[in-house]
Amino acid sequence: MKIGVIGGGQLGRMLALAGTPLGMQFVFLDPASDACAAALGSHICADYNDYDHLQQLAQQVDLVTFEFENVPADTVAFLSQLVPVYPGAEALRIARDRLLEKTLFRQLGIPVAPFADIHSQADLEEAAKTLGLPAVLKTRTLGYDGKGQRVLRQPEDLQGAFAALGSVPCILETFVPFSGEVSLVAVRGRDGETRAYPLVHNTHTDGILRLSIASSDHPLQAQAEDYVNRVLEHLDYVGVLAFEFFEIDGGLKANEIAPRVHNSGHWTIEGAECSQFENHLRAITGLPLGDTRKVGESAMINFIGEVPDASVVLAEPSCHLHHYNKAFKAGRKVGHATLRCDSMDQLQQALQRMQQIV
Amino acid sequence: MKIGVIGGGQLGRMLALAGTPLGMQFVFLDPASDACAAALGSHICADYNDYDHLQQLAQQVDLVTFEFENVPADTVAFLSQLVPVYPGAEALRIARDRLLEKTLFRQLGIPVAPFADIHSQADLEEAAKTLGLPAVLKTRTLGYDGKGQRVLRQPEDLQGAFAALGSVPCILETFVPFSGEVSLVAVRGRDGETRAYPLVHNTHTDGILRLSIASSDHPLQAQAEDYVNRVLEHLDYVGVLAFEFFEIDGGLKANEIAPRVHNSGHWTIEGAECSQFENHLRAITGLPLGDTRKVGESAMINFIGEVPDASVVLAEPSCHLHHYNKAFKAGRKVGHATLRCDSMDQLQQALQRMQQIV
Repeated sequence: MKIGVIGGGQLGRMLALAGTPLGMQFVFLDPASDACAAALGSHICADYNDYDHLQQLAQQVDLVTFEFENVPADTVAFLSQLVPVYPGAEALRIARDRLLEKTLFRQLGIPVAPFADIHSQADLEEAAKTLGLPAVLKTRTLGYDGKGQRVLRQPEDLQGAFAALGSVPCILETFVPFSGEVSLVAVRGRDGETRAYPLVHNTHTDGILRLSIASSDHPLQAQAEDYVNRVLEHLDYVGVLAFEFFEIDGGLKANEIAPRVHNSGHWTIEGAECSQFENHLRAITGLPLGDTRKVGESAMINFIGEVPDASVVLAEPSCHLHHYNKAFKAGRKVGHATLRCDSMDQLQQALQRMQQIV
Repeated sequence: MKIGVIGGGQLGRMLALAGTPLGMQFVFLDPASDACAAALGSHICADYNDYDHLQQLAQQVDLVTFEFENVPADTVAFLSQLVPVYPGAEALRIARDRLLEKTLFRQLGIPVAPFADIHSQADLEEAAKTLGLPAVLKTRTLGYDGKGQRVLRQPEDLQGAFAALGSVPCILETFVPFSGEVSLVAVRGRDGETRAYPLVHNTHTDGILRLSIASSDHPLQAQAEDYVNRVLEHLDYVGVLAFEFFEIDGGLKANEIAPRVHNSGHWTIEGAECSQFENHLRAITGLPLGDTRKVGESAMINFIGEVPDASVVLAEPSCHLHHYNKAFKAGRKVGHATLRCDSMDQLQQALQRMQQIV
């Protein structure tokens, strides 16, 4: 079975590390000549709207999947005519547009903070009156890791905010005074079976995920699974999908979905019986889904900008290093470590030791 | 860090799957054009005594290791002049020759069945009188998976036995009426630190390993670790070494060592905190050794000749499939599955379910 992947970054790399033992082979299409997944398969170095090379990809593989959602809609439509594509065009269309996404959540009865569609500075000023401040202005598309958004705390912050984000279609969201951020990584098979991993507590700094801790018996697990299942069913989704929520007043408000394997699920490589990467591949190839149960207690620490010296981090017995072999650059995700322990107490101690060395 | 590997089979493949997350890159030298490790690194397709290509390998990498021990001594000597080689020439020299190996065990005080050096049919007949029958005649070198050996049960079996094995130097070993076969996979770092995995119970059929079950608190664990440590220290060994023993009368008799990652250690990928593959790479690159503790209870089933349909084996929740992407051929190891469970009871039930489907 040969899998085509649009994008050749660390998610593609970890997909290939999970799929190779299943006998799968990988072809990555990525415009970067140093795409880090290329070490684990063949690499078509081309833009995402280069139809000659997209066709070449489709001819080489049994199906196509994505390691990121910001793929042009025409690319997805083109590929879909040639080869099975998972997840499908509709899931990608919704997930890459914050307005469509929030509108879908509302339609499916999933709680979401008030929001407004913004096409101009005038729209923004009008919406700010209705929704109130603080609020967050976000571009509808192409936002990730805190990029493409501005927090508006007081009326002066409105000035020039629409232009500052490039005068592109935006969404204004009421700022949610959340007590925590959690995400649910779930998978749906071609036959409609769904499974979910335990909810994960996430900590972001400067818009970038820093720390994920897999929860035990989270009181909102069933609620989160209900919400993610509504989305999976509605989209007739196949593969792994991550759903990020705000925790507020003991409940959940939807933040966003990612129609792919997700940074907050990296701990599943060591910390769950079957990882999110293997489960995504099982789902899209029609294999039985794998066990999403935790094995012990796990946390994941992202390495941003640089990966610490392996001889230092690997001295921690519970540490599993994932070095993406990407060029180091400030603000860039270049690796992560998963700490896996038998108990939550041991995990907290391991996290403290790691915080002293990284 | 770039690692050169002599041999590009499944062991090289699993080394690369373990080393890629540590940021390592791999170059395999293997004469087979379809070497299955090549998907995970670059491949120098050349014979093991092709010095031009060996030199090319040495120039590309930081160090060289081996996925099998039957490498010509001159190859090891040649590479050792150009680049660090782990394990070293002496360990390979001993491990590839059954006579040197058994002689070393005796020298180090490790119990071993009586044996004799055989250079002719006359030697064989003489030794059979001294050692008695049944006995096993084995070629000194190049034997694996039951190849290069004959069990001699009665005097008639002696006739032509030396010629049948190719009239090459042999060793005659007293047949050991063992109650079980166990192996210990251990690792020694560049700094001399050693760690061992739990003893593994092995079941062979037709000389090929079929089933390995990791033990819990085996009464001979400390004994086995003592024996393996004698060998590791004596050889100033660096990397993973597997030591196979016969269990007899509640004690151990040495069978053989393999100076490399070993089939009876494949379960450690999912079943131990740090796998034998990662630990071998940590050892040879001078990184801290990883935790050899078990995570739950594990068993490994070899797939010989063909890999069963993934959709069948992956329906077993505890099953982790490893398909080597090698051409199917009778008697060839082409994949394995590890079953990982929380308890030994659950593992036994999972094994029963698997035996019904494969």
